[in-house]
Amino acid sequence: MTTLVTLEPHRNPASPADKDALFARLSARFGKRFSRSEALRAQHANTLTWLKVQAPDAVLFAQSTEEVSEAVAACAAARVPVIPYGAGSSLEGQLNAPFGGLSLDLSEMKEIVSVHEDDLDCVVQAGVTRKQLNDYLRDTGLFFPVDPGADASLGGMAATRASGTNAVCYGTMRDAVLGLTAVLADGRIVKTGAGAKSAAGYDLTRLLVGSEGTLGVITELTLKLFGIPETILAGVSTYRTLEGACNATIAALQMGLPLARIELLDEVQVRACNAYSKLSVPEQPTLFLEFHGTPTGAREQVEIFSEIAQAEGGGALDWAARPEDRNRLWRARHDAYWAAKNLRPGTDLIATDVCVPISALAACVIETKQDIDRLGLVAPIVGHVGDGNFHVMPLIDSDSTDELERARAFLDRLIERALRFEGTCTGEHGVGQGKIGYLVAEHGQAVDVMIAIKKALDPSNILNPGKIFALDV
Amino acid sequence: MTTLVTLEPHRNPASPADKDALFARLSARFGKRFSRSEALRAQHANTLTWLKVQAPDAVLFAQSTEEVSEAVAACAAARVPVIPYGAGSSLEGQLNAPFGGLSLDLSEMKEIVSVHEDDLDCVVQAGVTRKQLNDYLRDTGLFFPVDPGADASLGGMAATRASGTNAVCYGTMRDAVLGLTAVLADGRIVKTGAGAKSAAGYDLTRLLVGSEGTLGVITELTLKLFGIPETILAGVSTYRTLEGACNATIAALQMGLPLARIELLDEVQVRACNAYSKLSVPEQPTLFLEFHGTPTGAREQVEIFSEIAQAEGGGALDWAARPEDRNRLWRARHDAYWAAKNLRPGTDLIATDVCVPISALAACVIETKQDIDRLGLVAPIVGHVGDGNFHVMPLIDSDSTDELERARAFLDRLIERALRFEGTCTGEHGVGQGKIGYLVAEHGQAVDVMIAIKKALDPSNILNPGKIFALDV
Repeated sequence: MTTLVTLEPHRNPASPADKDALFARLSARFGKRFSRSEALRAQHANTLTWLKVQAPDAVLFAQSTEEVSEAVAACAAARVPVIPYGAGSSLEGQLNAPFGGLSLDLSEMKEIVSVHEDDLDCVVQAGVTRKQLNDYLRDTGLFFPVDPGADASLGGMAATRASGTNAVCYGTMRDAVLGLTAVLADGRIVKTGAGAKSAAGYDLTRLLVGSEGTLGVITELTLKLFGIPETILAGVSTYRTLEGACNATIAALQMGLPLARIELLDEVQVRACNAYSKLSVPEQPTLFLEFHGTPTGAREQVEIFSEIAQAEGGGALDWAARPEDRNRLWRARHDAYWAAKNLRPGTDLIATDVCVPISALAACVIETKQDIDRLGLVAPIVGHVGDGNFHVMPLIDSDSTDELERARAFLDRLIERALRFEGTCTGEHGVGQGKIGYLVAEHGQAVDVMIAIKKALDPSNILNPGKIFALDV
Repeated sequence: MTTLVTLEPHRNPASPADKDALFARLSARFGKRFSRSEALRAQHANTLTWLKVQAPDAVLFAQSTEEVSEAVAACAAARVPVIPYGAGSSLEGQLNAPFGGLSLDLSEMKEIVSVHEDDLDCVVQAGVTRKQLNDYLRDTGLFFPVDPGADASLGGMAATRASGTNAVCYGTMRDAVLGLTAVLADGRIVKTGAGAKSAAGYDLTRLLVGSEGTLGVITELTLKLFGIPETILAGVSTYRTLEGACNATIAALQMGLPLARIELLDEVQVRACNAYSKLSVPEQPTLFLEFHGTPTGAREQVEIFSEIAQAEGGGALDWAARPEDRNRLWRARHDAYWAAKNLRPGTDLIATDVCVPISALAACVIETKQDIDRLGLVAPIVGHVGDGNFHVMPLIDSDSTDELERARAFLDRLIERALRFEGTCTGEHGVGQGKIGYLVAEHGQAVDVMIAIKKALDPSNILNPGKIFALDV
């Protein structure tokens, strides 16, 4: 199933001398904000994955769209790859530099340019993180809902089309990004979208969202905001079986219940969270839930969900009415990655995800669980199940060839299974390097269309080469 | 402001002999479903606009994706343009054939392929209309919400990225299309998206949605469905001023009230609807409203909105609780086009629309109204104001050069005004031929990116040439 797509990385790569000349120019221009230090380079490669670290040749901290444009134009002229870097929290090797090049760090582009309370939107620079934005918005009564767990940069979240716990009710980055400013492969600056909620012509905004830095470097975004609901009710619902938890999710969605958050944790992940985050949730398949609405509306949702849970073998619902209890619950969910890692200290955690139609969720999760057990892996499951997206996190001793082989077989089968259920090979982590092999299996000839677009907009393959499609990974 | 974009229509157009040979082959292959009759050709050109009719050379009624593929491949080989045709309800000349070619009529592709009640989606052929789909869904408890007024084909609605009365609550075609099958310029068939609600790689679905037949012929769509709400409350709210009606809309949106429908009619349009649809609404600026929810939730929304309306000078709210009253109301709204036409029988109606950020809605509508009055035009205003989108319909005696000139000046200023307020030159009608001149003013350099994509996917400019961008219109 691992069909690789051929896209020449560089028809005419830069010579070492050209590269040195480019870096000397960038160093003279940007001073301390340009660096070739080994530590910084290593830190800017792939950090949260089990993929091999492939460090860039240099790192530049840009502070404006114009600086990004200048740097990309210089790199393009010298045929040196550019790898955009936000908060370093991507999970499929998006930050690796398999062909070397410049890591373009946007984390200093942290300005919240404007908030339009009347229009329920805001403009931010790409390095602003979702927590920074929500802290800033606190006094406005508005919030930005997309929440993948990590405190990712909003530019990075757009580039990987992040989803997260709030997706059912509030949408993903595909919906949240109304427009953006991007630097193209030749350094040109373009603005997509309009202040209005729709725009004429091709939807370049959504083309760039999810393009993982391969079509343009996103430098600024217009984001949709929402009013903080009058009432927020959160709680925990435990089930005898994983199937019961999945079926309760499906039933609630089919009834059109506006689930603000619905997160599935299998008993392994609950055990991990109890230990790491000092919770005392029964170690059974569990849903973390949140309902938003008017006081009456939110309570009505809770009542309806309680009935659904009972019908699916769910135990008594434990509602966290106080904000501090609610925050503790969601902090635990956000720390699921670290909690999982703690289950087998010293091992590598492979964070992978798939997404399937809701009707296939229970079957796909259960088959996956059986495969984990059969292979003797430790691999907690946690998922934004409201949109059929679930994560599996095998903990692997990378020194053990046997474990690595079992993990690889598991991952292959996980994706085969998701595609068999008409799902997708990645729910929200993106393709990066880790899922390249599955793109053709998922999309067939449509991959050729993607490549035609990539070639039209980046003929020299300067922008994040070796991601999404690649000759050689 | 009318900067034209240069895209060569045909570097190497078909000779009359090549065209005849192609049409002879298509006629032999498709029999009666292929026609060169003058009446059919005229009927397949631009029907609902004031733009000059430019008939295609021939019409083919395709019945499957494979037939579309075969026809497009044959046309591509002969370098003959292909103009996809759905229900003929587009408004910006999308169906015109400025360079001749084949009108590819998909109206016989009316199969509802599958409905996945569990996943809240369905697969339909492109010729299925929205009313046909909703009739079919009636017994399932589900519905398809996007509703532009006309009983358009779903393929056409996707191609023009239609919006409509339900957009605030349920989204536009951008949100509703989860995946699609399209025939590319060389006849290749691609499928985009996945059964799951997200997919890996570039978002080709959203690139094709809104591409107006210039990148591919959409033949099949996977569409998002919603549960029919338990309670639907609709009604009419009249205002002393247009500003009051706009401000009530803005206030409701800012409070996060989930408005299922909110439609603005100025007093001219109300008068037209009263006469045409036998309503008896006071002839003042008016909002038609609809709220969806649980019995408690929907009533709670009505109460909140009533308070907002009063604060903005709105009169007593007249609620249509019975389904037949509600249907009468929305039928009148849907017939707004015909009602407007009836205000000045025998004139041409120019249906145009723009969209601005909500915060600019009142100012933009009021300036527009002043311009109409100043120019002495009859031009009712009606709008899906929930997303800042409003329509103006000047009624013009096309034999009067003076009236035509005033109308042109009005349209130019309308769009200039919308762009000045950071809006877009078309809310939901698309660019077609009518808005080509404004694309660069709206998007600047981003238009070059669109053209690069067009050239990459349709290098001979076979698919709907002369739309969105053109050398010569």
